Amino acid sequence: MGKLLIVGSMAFDAIETPFGKTGKILGGAGTFIGLAASQFKVDAAIVSVVGDDFPQSYMDILKNKNIDLTGVEVVKGGKTFFWEGKYHNDLNSRDTLVTELNTLADFSPIVPDNFTDADVVMLGNLHPNIQMSVIHQMEKRPKLIILDTMNFWIDSTWDELMAVIKKIDVITINDAEARQMTGEYSLVKAAAKIQEMGPKYVVIKKGEHGALLFHKENIFFAPALPLEEVFDPTGAGDTFAGGFAGYLTETGNISFESMKNAIIHGSNLASFCVERFGTDRMVNLQKHEVDSRLMQFRDLTQFNIELT
Amino acid sequence: MGKLLIVGSMAFDAIETPFGKTGKILGGAGTFIGLAASQFKVDAAIVSVVGDDFPQSYMDILKNKNIDLTGVEVVKGGKTFFWEGKYHNDLNSRDTLVTELNTLADFSPIVPDNFTDADVVMLGNLHPNIQMSVIHQMEKRPKLIILDTMNFWIDSTWDELMAVIKKIDVITINDAEARQMTGEYSLVKAAAKIQEMGPKYVVIKKGEHGALLFHKENIFFAPALPLEEVFDPTGAGDTFAGGFAGYLTETGNISFESMKNAIIHGSNLASFCVERFGTDRMVNLQKHEVDSRLMQFRDLTQFNIELT
Repeated sequence: MGKLLIVGSMAFDAIETPFGKTGKILGGAGTFIGLAASQFKVDAAIVSVVGDDFPQSYMDILKNKNIDLTGVEVVKGGKTFFWEGKYHNDLNSRDTLVTELNTLADFSPIVPDNFTDADVVMLGNLHPNIQMSVIHQMEKRPKLIILDTMNFWIDSTWDELMAVIKKIDVITINDAEARQMTGEYSLVKAAAKIQEMGPKYVVIKKGEHGALLFHKENIFFAPALPLEEVFDPTGAGDTFAGGFAGYLTETGNISFESMKNAIIHGSNLASFCVERFGTDRMVNLQKHEVDSRLMQFRDLTQFNIELT
Repeated sequence: MGKLLIVGSMAFDAIETPFGKTGKILGGAGTFIGLAASQFKVDAAIVSVVGDDFPQSYMDILKNKNIDLTGVEVVKGGKTFFWEGKYHNDLNSRDTLVTELNTLADFSPIVPDNFTDADVVMLGNLHPNIQMSVIHQMEKRPKLIILDTMNFWIDSTWDELMAVIKKIDVITINDAEARQMTGEYSLVKAAAKIQEMGPKYVVIKKGEHGALLFHKENIFFAPALPLEEVFDPTGAGDTFAGGFAGYLTETGNISFESMKNAIIHGSNLASFCVERFGTDRMVNLQKHEVDSRLMQFRDLTQFNIELT
């Protein structure tokens, strides 16, 4: 079975949407990536850090999905990363109300010995130096390194970000960030410029407007599944990335054709994530639900035109 | 050959985008719909009105595409509808600077005798009473009636709009208008409500984010082709509608499966329209270019997932 190493936050989230408000619930990029990847036949491990306020029940949720948590450091007397946000009525934008980095501020990831030979490495959104440190700990070059980042790092750690993205294969960012990184409004031009910065594959996430995969002259697009109701978008991007990475790890095939399918699988899983608060939907997701919705994706996008 | 009756404005447009500025050039919904439909093997006619300031050379552009202009009234001493607009930097929004209805204000369409038995009627964006008047002139119920409308009519002629959309099969509107018509943010819910108002098929145009086709429980989505540069979005929605209507008229097949292809053809043609100012690209568009880009659409969206 292919090995997938996931590096990303494990966190407490507190979320308000037009549909309601949560207390502190399980969140974090590493968590969402792990839950999505666990839908595939992979050996997955998360490298992260939490405080000793992080409940064992949350650890068990991930362990029950067969995710190796050896690499999750528990800091005694430390507090877990906490994020609080409130979504606007259209759910397309949000205000961050609280960000307490806590133990994440001094996070120094340690890759477990049995994952230094991982086939695929998924670097969740973190300081580029932390992402680089993980790459340096790998005993051999992984088959595929995927990196997610965000506007904050583009703004504040440009040089470090440029250094790490030279070492990776796939970058996932959203449309606004792609434009911010390149000064290009056209996503086609932006993706071309980002490929010049290092990553051979560029995945641009457009939220409810789907996702684009770019590689040289090739472009692939997957829509987000049109839903009656989006309940809570938190974690959708990480779930997408986790599905993408999980599929490629399971198949071991990193061709462009295979990445197309990975994009569809990621979009498919993200469509579940947004149906409940936090991780609720992903924790209880069944294979038959996943398969059935994949058929919806096929019906949504596949056509048959014969040229005359 | 199938007959397609097009009702829509023929106009002078003056357009400013970040890339430049035009004087008065050929525009109008009927014009763009006609140019797109002329890419298909159809007998097409436009019903419209212009002033005698409308140059013969513009008429000839449409005539050279084998479009019947018998139904275009030329008002002596009248002035042609004029629209002037300026696009913002992202090309997704625009300000209307001038709207002079001129002869369009008193437009009373007369369907030419040889088109009262048209197979498909495409009612471009006009006062709902004008659209209704065309339906009443048909000697038999067309196989398919498609109607386009906009926020202005939703705001100011609600009852008339509700009356005419009960008579039609397919409505094409943009996402903001679908939300405005229904009070639903979710496009899935909005499309369901619009179907209850009459049209069995709802096409929601999302500009650079593609288009959705809804019919009962079925949804189909086509992206807009990602382009290096969008030069001028004017007419893209009408070009989309013209491609949609033209394909269905040529094939004579109005099943949901056929409409999927029609959506792809419409999106394909719209991707050309935006590459130049006004009608320039559509007037000179060649079949091999259209076919080649259809293949790009296929590569962009088609995947092959086998369920295990």
